[in-house]
Amino acid sequence: MLDATSWISDRRKLIDDALRATLDAMGGPPRLREASAYSVLAGGKRVRPLLVFAAAEAVGGAAREALGAAQAVELIHTFSLIHDDLPCMDDDDLRRGRPSCHKAFDEATALLAGDGLMSLAFELAASHCLPPATPERALRIVHELAAATGPTGMVGGQILDLAGEGQALGLDALEEIHALKTGALIGWCLEAAAIMARVPPEGRSGLRGYARDIGLAFQIADDLLDHEGSEEKAGKRVGKDAQAGKGTFVSLLGADRARQQARALVDQAIDHLRPFGAEADLLRAIARFAVERDH
Amino acid sequence: MLDATSWISDRRKLIDDALRATLDAMGGPPRLREASAYSVLAGGKRVRPLLVFAAAEAVGGAAREALGAAQAVELIHTFSLIHDDLPCMDDDDLRRGRPSCHKAFDEATALLAGDGLMSLAFELAASHCLPPATPERALRIVHELAAATGPTGMVGGQILDLAGEGQALGLDALEEIHALKTGALIGWCLEAAAIMARVPPEGRSGLRGYARDIGLAFQIADDLLDHEGSEEKAGKRVGKDAQAGKGTFVSLLGADRARQQARALVDQAIDHLRPFGAEADLLRAIARFAVERDH
Repeated sequence: MLDATSWISDRRKLIDDALRATLDAMGGPPRLREASAYSVLAGGKRVRPLLVFAAAEAVGGAAREALGAAQAVELIHTFSLIHDDLPCMDDDDLRRGRPSCHKAFDEATALLAGDGLMSLAFELAASHCLPPATPERALRIVHELAAATGPTGMVGGQILDLAGEGQALGLDALEEIHALKTGALIGWCLEAAAIMARVPPEGRSGLRGYARDIGLAFQIADDLLDHEGSEEKAGKRVGKDAQAGKGTFVSLLGADRARQQARALVDQAIDHLRPFGAEADLLRAIARFAVERDH
Repeated sequence: MLDATSWISDRRKLIDDALRATLDAMGGPPRLREASAYSVLAGGKRVRPLLVFAAAEAVGGAAREALGAAQAVELIHTFSLIHDDLPCMDDDDLRRGRPSCHKAFDEATALLAGDGLMSLAFELAASHCLPPATPERALRIVHELAAATGPTGMVGGQILDLAGEGQALGLDALEEIHALKTGALIGWCLEAAAIMARVPPEGRSGLRGYARDIGLAFQIADDLLDHEGSEEKAGKRVGKDAQAGKGTFVSLLGADRARQQARALVDQAIDHLRPFGAEADLLRAIARFAVERDH
């Protein structure tokens, strides 16, 4: 039987070691490297790299072959957190319990560290896509990463998110924001593995459906954690995002229905994996794992 | 005989039309597209795309084949200007005679427009590298673009530039900053064309030397323009960068020696093109052109 917990801890070590080596080897001015390493090695849960690994293994590849892609997506994610925390964006002084990058360094350094991490991500994606990816498929993976990062993906979602602050958003609008802001990059994790291994259309559309559903489930789980955390801490009924005037799944649905919705999405995500056998058990485990604890 | 002026105006139209079409077709939220188009279509001189075209033509390619690369480098350049103008960086309210992006929109939108343009650049580079570039060479072009953009290139130069403000930098330190901040991307313009067309080592090292010298010549010409502009406008002896406490080639060398130095670099750049015949006349013309007027 699959021991998902030990798989996760093993693959986390794999990605953490790879990221540490990448940051150590990163050229350029020391201050930029320090700020980049500060944020990348701050102990994230590595959900996106885990998805890349699990997807690669589900379609017959090996985690090591997907290390370039796994690092690339984590660097993109980290760059977005650094920029998101800046005063002109969410203005967050803390990230993962430590001063955010612009607090530990300064705003200009944080801005440039984010810019540098984005380009480093493309550098890794374009050079570390090992066989079985042919240059043609590696090029497609890079192209899809750029599309998932940019205006039609994460960056597009961030601007919609900002525009939505203080407005009474409906459920559809909220889902659209998160489909771009977090969903596009999560979709890429699965897509990259599928491109690398030439997965046939049926399996591909299953992976896409899975990505869509867990992306949304993760976001609802985040809103729930935020809500519960702030309830515990301050006896308040609303979390940080809701305080900032942002609509959340909890503020729209209430905590109970949001929890039901997250579970239903996880079931639906797992259902999309029907074309796959036991080789996709890790993807199934990640889906359950991710809504059960913080990530 | 080569009519460089009409070549330049023709190729400028080519890149302007292509960028306009790319921005028109850009998906994602309208506000992001507006802010991106505002900055990209603000009438830059398109020195980098012109270099890509001239290099492609010098090594036996056609300008149209290099349109993806030419657009990509201009989008990277534009993203860097948008981020450079932000309050936490140079805090410039004006760019090319109009309000800078964060003034015309807002800081968060400008930050995200810059982020979006960087990813769009990689999307274009990874998808619009037409034959004769094979997928393998296209992948290398993308990889080199990322390296020229990131910590070991432009972004690295930006942080050195910030760190150098208010300090008495020597000529070597100033040259190092600009080799990264502007030189790396200019080098990529030539390198991309060379990779595309499989230029042999001798020609390649000539193109590299050319890029290094004109990159520096452009920067000195910029410092001279800044110096002359501020002398004319306010009767002051120092330009904007010098006022901000930044060392410039003019503040270090004086205007006359800086002018001599720029001319000597142009001669040296042209000398690097010895392996090439008349097919590199455009590169020669751009070198002269670029230190004669603003860009």
